[in-house]
Amino acid sequence: MSKPLILVTNDDGIESKGIKSLVEVATKFGEVVVVAPDGPQSGQGHAITLVSPIRIRKRKIFNGVESYECSGTPVDAVKLAKNIMLKDREIDLCLSGINHGSNASLNIIYSGTMSAAMEASMKGINAIGFSLLDYSKDADFSASKYYAEKLIGSMLEYQGPKGKLLNVNIPKLSIEEIKGIKVCEQGEGTWDEEFQESLDPRGETYYWLGGRFVGEKQNLKSDIWALENNYISVVPSHHNLTDYASMDSFVYLEDNS
Amino acid sequence: MSKPLILVTNDDGIESKGIKSLVEVATKFGEVVVVAPDGPQSGQGHAITLVSPIRIRKRKIFNGVESYECSGTPVDAVKLAKNIMLKDREIDLCLSGINHGSNASLNIIYSGTMSAAMEASMKGINAIGFSLLDYSKDADFSASKYYAEKLIGSMLEYQGPKGKLLNVNIPKLSIEEIKGIKVCEQGEGTWDEEFQESLDPRGETYYWLGGRFVGEKQNLKSDIWALENNYISVVPSHHNLTDYASMDSFVYLEDNS
Repeated sequence: MSKPLILVTNDDGIESKGIKSLVEVATKFGEVVVVAPDGPQSGQGHAITLVSPIRIRKRKIFNGVESYECSGTPVDAVKLAKNIMLKDREIDLCLSGINHGSNASLNIIYSGTMSAAMEASMKGINAIGFSLLDYSKDADFSASKYYAEKLIGSMLEYQGPKGKLLNVNIPKLSIEEIKGIKVCEQGEGTWDEEFQESLDPRGETYYWLGGRFVGEKQNLKSDIWALENNYISVVPSHHNLTDYASMDSFVYLEDNS
Repeated sequence: MSKPLILVTNDDGIESKGIKSLVEVATKFGEVVVVAPDGPQSGQGHAITLVSPIRIRKRKIFNGVESYECSGTPVDAVKLAKNIMLKDREIDLCLSGINHGSNASLNIIYSGTMSAAMEASMKGINAIGFSLLDYSKDADFSASKYYAEKLIGSMLEYQGPKGKLLNVNIPKLSIEEIKGIKVCEQGEGTWDEEFQESLDPRGETYYWLGGRFVGEKQNLKSDIWALENNYISVVPSHHNLTDYASMDSFVYLEDNS
């Protein structure tokens, strides 16, 4: 294989510590191009910018690595990379993250990090989204970098069909404390939401979304179990949302026409 | 069953013709409460509002139907409904739409309409997202209303596990031209994107996302095939993104630790 071309993006913005860590690892493997949002885009899910224009700005932020920030969402960043910065070039791997905070279980659904990676996979590019279970800006990414290097190396050697997507979550532990890597299924969980209700200076009510994630810890095959038990979770994921198991139960709808 | 409680939302905003059509149908079945974005939110995917407050305003817009508009995304609207307007009440069904434009195939991933419905299903509420394959503001929803009524009636009778989600797409045809309803899987497709590059009045470059959806029409089980062949497509969908078929191919990653 010639030197692979690796696209790096994220949802915490190009200035975050997580993407810097990921760029440092990625440059060991090939040519890296960064296209990332110009500011935090957490919780953007698979949002795209349709009703307003997008701006691109070249940045000199990572040592000798071609880098761009854009004004849109994480998914926009991948679309821009594919259609503009890396037009007519074959991208071998897309890396997203390292996210500051978990994207395990159903958090994948809300995640800009994973949506960017999924967008790449929908375009036939193998992609990995990395997330560390630590929301702090100054999170310690040393174990994440160690394992990201292993996983990126393995994924670059993967010979199967293109467009594969991995959701990688890393517990907030040292390299020594982490027990290894588990290939898992997406665990079940719920968000126990709480809206903060308050008054603004003009006396108008506003609401602010907060809450707490509650994961179902009993399923030994799930990413939640793996993370609770000091493993890194790797969930092969895809964009086919069909609930095949329920198809038969809904065939009765056809009789209705 | 007592009179069911039905939550109606959408992503085109509370003023759109599509949600008006859906409210008209829903009120035939039970008590309807509308919580919808105050403006267009297409392409918002599963975005949520984390970094700014959300406003709610009571509206008198649909005849005698309790209605609220909110400043957030479609998913925010469902979270608000569940936690504020309908707190402590059991929602029997969530309806989203009727969207102006297709959400078949991978469009479900970008869709605010379907993400709102999915958010409800993630909370254990049965949910249906409706989309008409007509982007125009003045689209003719008469066939959509006819079939929405059939499907809502059937879904209210469904006795299986809660939290089921249906992605319903309706071809741009008259009632007579529509051949019936097909239960399908999510078809494959791609977006052939094109960024319009232009200069603003200050001479700065901007990009605007456009493009064309290209669906794979050969799969006779897919929603794309059904719609091409004048059927309404119903895809049972869910939020479990695990690519089970690929799990074995990635077990080799575990040996890496």
